[in-house]
Amino acid sequence: MSVLRLIPCEGGFDLAIGGTLVLRHRPDTPALFVGTGHADVDMYRGNYFLSDRLDARMPLVDASIEGETVTLAAAGGEPLLRIEIDGGALALTALDPALNRVWLRCVAEPGERLWGGGEQMSYFDMAGRRFPLWTSEPGVGRDKSTLMTFQCDRDGRSGGDYWNTNYPQPTYVSSRRYAFHLDTTAYSCFDFRDPAFHEIEAWEIPARIELFGADRFAALVTQLSTRFGRQPMLPAWACDGAILGLKQGEESFARMEAMIAAGAVVSGLWCEDWVGLRVTSFGKRLFWDWKANEARYPALRDRIAALAARGIRFLGYVNPYLAIDGSLYAEALAAGYLALRIDGDEPYVVDFGEFDCGIVDFTNPAAADWFADRVIGREMLDYGLSGWMADFGEYLPTDVRLYDGTDGMLAHNAWPTIWAEVNARAIASRGRTGDALFFMRAGFTGVGRHCPLLWAGDQCVDFSRHDGIGTVIRAALSSGMVGNAYHHSDLGGYTSLYGNVRTPELLMRWSELSAFSPVMRSHEGNRPDDNLQLDGDAAVLSHFVDMTRVHAALAPYMRTLCEAAATSGLPVQRALLLDWEEDAACWGIETQFGLGRDMIVAPVIEADRDTWSAYLPAGAQWVHLWTGDRFEGGAHVEVAAPLGRPPVFWCADSEHAPLFASFADDGVKR
Amino acid sequence: MSVLRLIPCEGGFDLAIGGTLVLRHRPDTPALFVGTGHADVDMYRGNYFLSDRLDARMPLVDASIEGETVTLAAAGGEPLLRIEIDGGALALTALDPALNRVWLRCVAEPGERLWGGGEQMSYFDMAGRRFPLWTSEPGVGRDKSTLMTFQCDRDGRSGGDYWNTNYPQPTYVSSRRYAFHLDTTAYSCFDFRDPAFHEIEAWEIPARIELFGADRFAALVTQLSTRFGRQPMLPAWACDGAILGLKQGEESFARMEAMIAAGAVVSGLWCEDWVGLRVTSFGKRLFWDWKANEARYPALRDRIAALAARGIRFLGYVNPYLAIDGSLYAEALAAGYLALRIDGDEPYVVDFGEFDCGIVDFTNPAAADWFADRVIGREMLDYGLSGWMADFGEYLPTDVRLYDGTDGMLAHNAWPTIWAEVNARAIASRGRTGDALFFMRAGFTGVGRHCPLLWAGDQCVDFSRHDGIGTVIRAALSSGMVGNAYHHSDLGGYTSLYGNVRTPELLMRWSELSAFSPVMRSHEGNRPDDNLQLDGDAAVLSHFVDMTRVHAALAPYMRTLCEAAATSGLPVQRALLLDWEEDAACWGIETQFGLGRDMIVAPVIEADRDTWSAYLPAGAQWVHLWTGDRFEGGAHVEVAAPLGRPPVFWCADSEHAPLFASFADDGVKR
Repeated sequence: MSVLRLIPCEGGFDLAIGGTLVLRHRPDTPALFVGTGHADVDMYRGNYFLSDRLDARMPLVDASIEGETVTLAAAGGEPLLRIEIDGGALALTALDPALNRVWLRCVAEPGERLWGGGEQMSYFDMAGRRFPLWTSEPGVGRDKSTLMTFQCDRDGRSGGDYWNTNYPQPTYVSSRRYAFHLDTTAYSCFDFRDPAFHEIEAWEIPARIELFGADRFAALVTQLSTRFGRQPMLPAWACDGAILGLKQGEESFARMEAMIAAGAVVSGLWCEDWVGLRVTSFGKRLFWDWKANEARYPALRDRIAALAARGIRFLGYVNPYLAIDGSLYAEALAAGYLALRIDGDEPYVVDFGEFDCGIVDFTNPAAADWFADRVIGREMLDYGLSGWMADFGEYLPTDVRLYDGTDGMLAHNAWPTIWAEVNARAIASRGRTGDALFFMRAGFTGVGRHCPLLWAGDQCVDFSRHDGIGTVIRAALSSGMVGNAYHHSDLGGYTSLYGNVRTPELLMRWSELSAFSPVMRSHEGNRPDDNLQLDGDAAVLSHFVDMTRVHAALAPYMRTLCEAAATSGLPVQRALLLDWEEDAACWGIETQFGLGRDMIVAPVIEADRDTWSAYLPAGAQWVHLWTGDRFEGGAHVEVAAPLGRPPVFWCADSEHAPLFASFADDGVKR
Repeated sequence: MSVLRLIPCEGGFDLAIGGTLVLRHRPDTPALFVGTGHADVDMYRGNYFLSDRLDARMPLVDASIEGETVTLAAAGGEPLLRIEIDGGALALTALDPALNRVWLRCVAEPGERLWGGGEQMSYFDMAGRRFPLWTSEPGVGRDKSTLMTFQCDRDGRSGGDYWNTNYPQPTYVSSRRYAFHLDTTAYSCFDFRDPAFHEIEAWEIPARIELFGADRFAALVTQLSTRFGRQPMLPAWACDGAILGLKQGEESFARMEAMIAAGAVVSGLWCEDWVGLRVTSFGKRLFWDWKANEARYPALRDRIAALAARGIRFLGYVNPYLAIDGSLYAEALAAGYLALRIDGDEPYVVDFGEFDCGIVDFTNPAAADWFADRVIGREMLDYGLSGWMADFGEYLPTDVRLYDGTDGMLAHNAWPTIWAEVNARAIASRGRTGDALFFMRAGFTGVGRHCPLLWAGDQCVDFSRHDGIGTVIRAALSSGMVGNAYHHSDLGGYTSLYGNVRTPELLMRWSELSAFSPVMRSHEGNRPDDNLQLDGDAAVLSHFVDMTRVHAALAPYMRTLCEAAATSGLPVQRALLLDWEEDAACWGIETQFGLGRDMIVAPVIEADRDTWSAYLPAGAQWVHLWTGDRFEGGAHVEVAAPLGRPPVFWCADSEHAPLFASFADDGVKR
């Protein structure tokens, strides 16, 4: 780990991590600014519109340094901020309690790349753009030039933009081989547009700014995963076959059996509708009262047990809200476990799109315990569930009154991690850690410490640039850079609106992508009846069956990656730059991933393609998975990529070569 | 005129105009902030995307007062700003030359209304919204919820928003009976969103902030028109009949004759294509080389003379740019009259949509003289033109190098007024002031001093809320509040894109609106061939003929309003609040106008209506123009409003009652 050094100089100071200059503070180009403002927060169904009403922004031009402490003031004014070097971090103290804004300018260099920011869907390299960091709905379309985005903006304020994400995190990794983390849950923003500096903004004075230095990118990721917490080990069963997402009530079981009969390798059945349905204009939604609905799933407990005997797990769904017309809401209300309105003692009710819910107040330990034990423990784990989608976490209103008195503006971003912890605690309470699995789309700093699997949220069922299949690759790469090891997506995408429906091709391309992810989980989407399903077309099903077999065959390799992740924190699906740092061409690759070091996956993420171009890192020979053709690294190669043959390459020197070689079309394995 | 008073108090001061508190400066709620920033300017074909990279914003909490001078500083810092009371204004002096931003917070009150801001199309009352003030294309659609706006944004970055306008002006009139003006051409912004204050921002330290107080709104408008300059008197002929906009080459003459034969009262023929055409994807554009095109208009000089003999004026078109493939460009280039690129001695070339133009550098007196005398004087006035559309003025790039060294960021907003002055000078040079007429859409402070007639720019050919027929009413009301007397619009609208074309109903409703404007001028729009024209449908033509006769019949009344405007500065089309101030219900009316005091016009600005509701001011009896029905003021009245009978009412006590009464359906005049 590199050392953080404060280097005083005439009128200012430099701050370096190892040999890398991070801050350069001079009276005419100050690196620190403090101020005051108040936030305008406008929220509609999880889509947030924030703006700052700024009162003051004062450049802290006067710096006085004593030992490891810098005291800063505006020109001629009283000291406003104190910074102390504290190991690898800067400890900040506001000397005026009214201050609630800070801006920090870090040194920028031409050509510098910046990765991370949590889970970013649109851009892996954040250079040149501005990224507000606030957990929210990511938007539908996320591209103001598309009709989808326009329609969603118009009808539901939900079109989103490139930076909207369920999982933001104020952490970046610079190609200058340092990482930066802002220790705050306040709204913050990374502004990477200026060629001379990166401007980091936060809507409180954060306690600490953490810096990490290392000689290699991978070492930085290891440091970050140590700092934020390694993800709990992914259960072995989760990699062994596909998890089928079906939500047709008891009919789901029959459909699963038919798919198994067709040859699919299945490790789990995921029925999010296990709680029953509610129909809205968006599509069929779930009934948010977290108990098995035995009207929809008769004798579910027994069926789960029967599946388990065959080695097939059953998964469900939960989120941190309680529908006001459900029985758990009544329980929580009676016990005083609900978050309150700021203006009274009434529970805060959130509109989730044609139905209202209360918020369980996890800052109340008794409420968190109740949710972990009474809801997840008793209703889910004890009932037989081995996993669930732990949905939402992004909607905490900022004007809520919480048990522990935390300001909603600070609790909002913290909520996903708190929600993850409640889930992890429930699993631990039943001794199921490392066996039961939950997956989350919402996140923030530290979510991975509790949540064993990220999921990329609700893509559109298409190939669109900012909300289609390709975004899940960027999401895996970026979340991996801040220390998360396990990522996956809804096979087939989720959001189908305005007549945008799945094509057979989309389902097949997504099956290919998912087969090379740690977890291959399908989803029927928000409007199952309007959309093609995996078992709705013979060619699609046959292709899916093949891909489940590929996925299952990869399981031994996947296990080695999971075990390595537990030690190194390196993600299973990872940016090429982590293993092939010397080849700077890899730094800019955002539509491919390494499945570990030894495999490069370049999924086809455009329609109507039967060839595809992939970049292969320099310094190795690469073998095309299906043909066995060999390529020298350090170049783009164009390969045939018909449906069923996604562009995948393995490193000729891999110790897993025998396994990989078995996939070739003249191989024997499949 | 009310007196500006500085009232010192403990730690701060108040500033009042008459009895109205405008600024309230206290250490904990300072009214003044200064800072530094630099602008990001992104322009595409006249659509500007500005953002500020802010370095500092310092609340000037320390105020020291000596006599009429306030010296302000940030807490404990050196003095940064000096303000001196100078008659009705605050003279500002930056005490640090690096300062280039100022924010001023004026006192806000609940229910306060704010009018002006130049020519605002979307909202007459600006309360509750933010208005950047920067001359630009106003956008097409101007409403992010419409498909039109989306398509224009997507394809040309040209959708615009509610605040985009050709004619901004940093002046507002408050219902608290004072007016505020920022004496700067820098980018500025009125932010009226905060309930506690109005925040006024400018991207330089303006020399002066001017305040005007009066007991009545009308008196404020008179003061403003005196301050900014009264518009030159509208020529009498311009009100006497319709000005027909036709642009079909010499065929235009035959079409005019046919319309006259049908009974239309015509005072002018306006052929913007007098310079010839250029076809682009937007539609037929003009050839920007300002000379008669006798290929398109054979023997034009003689035809103009023949029209003149019949009392019909001929009008053309000009703008401040020169197409690089035209002869005038070559002349200007040779003489060194073109604005240059900032990075060299090459002329700055602007893309106007598939063709490029040079910019005549009006800061060079010789260039301005050349344009006034050689171009407008010789090619237009001497040729026989009696008027023209003086188009554009909004596109001055900010990175241009000007003869007099003015920074492009300051010259940009100034350009429309400079352009107006060049036109006025040309007219004066031929002794035609008060006789020749030009009309402009672009504007800024002082444009009215030179330009005898505003035109509301390029509406869409529809009834849409933010870019349709109704916007021209708000434009007239708002531009009138800052002292402009004469306003009109393109009868029929201009912009037809994406299959949006004129309906017969739209043409008829716009004829009705235009008949009650000082000038009734038609336009064929950007795509004449795709759109219905006034002479393209018998019912439309017949309706138009009727409306020209109404317009002509109103001329005597219109003359009295023009004469009054010369004295009072009060607009011909005016907000009801100017004459009916005691009736506060009038303050919020933005879809009606007074034609002077004595007539209320409530044009039908929605499709498919045959009745309409109008508000009639309290304190008078009102007579419906067509039926003679009488209504007591102080209420909304619903009247029949079939095509041809726009809702118009006159004041029963009017001295023009005999004229008005003649319009009744049982009257004799028509």
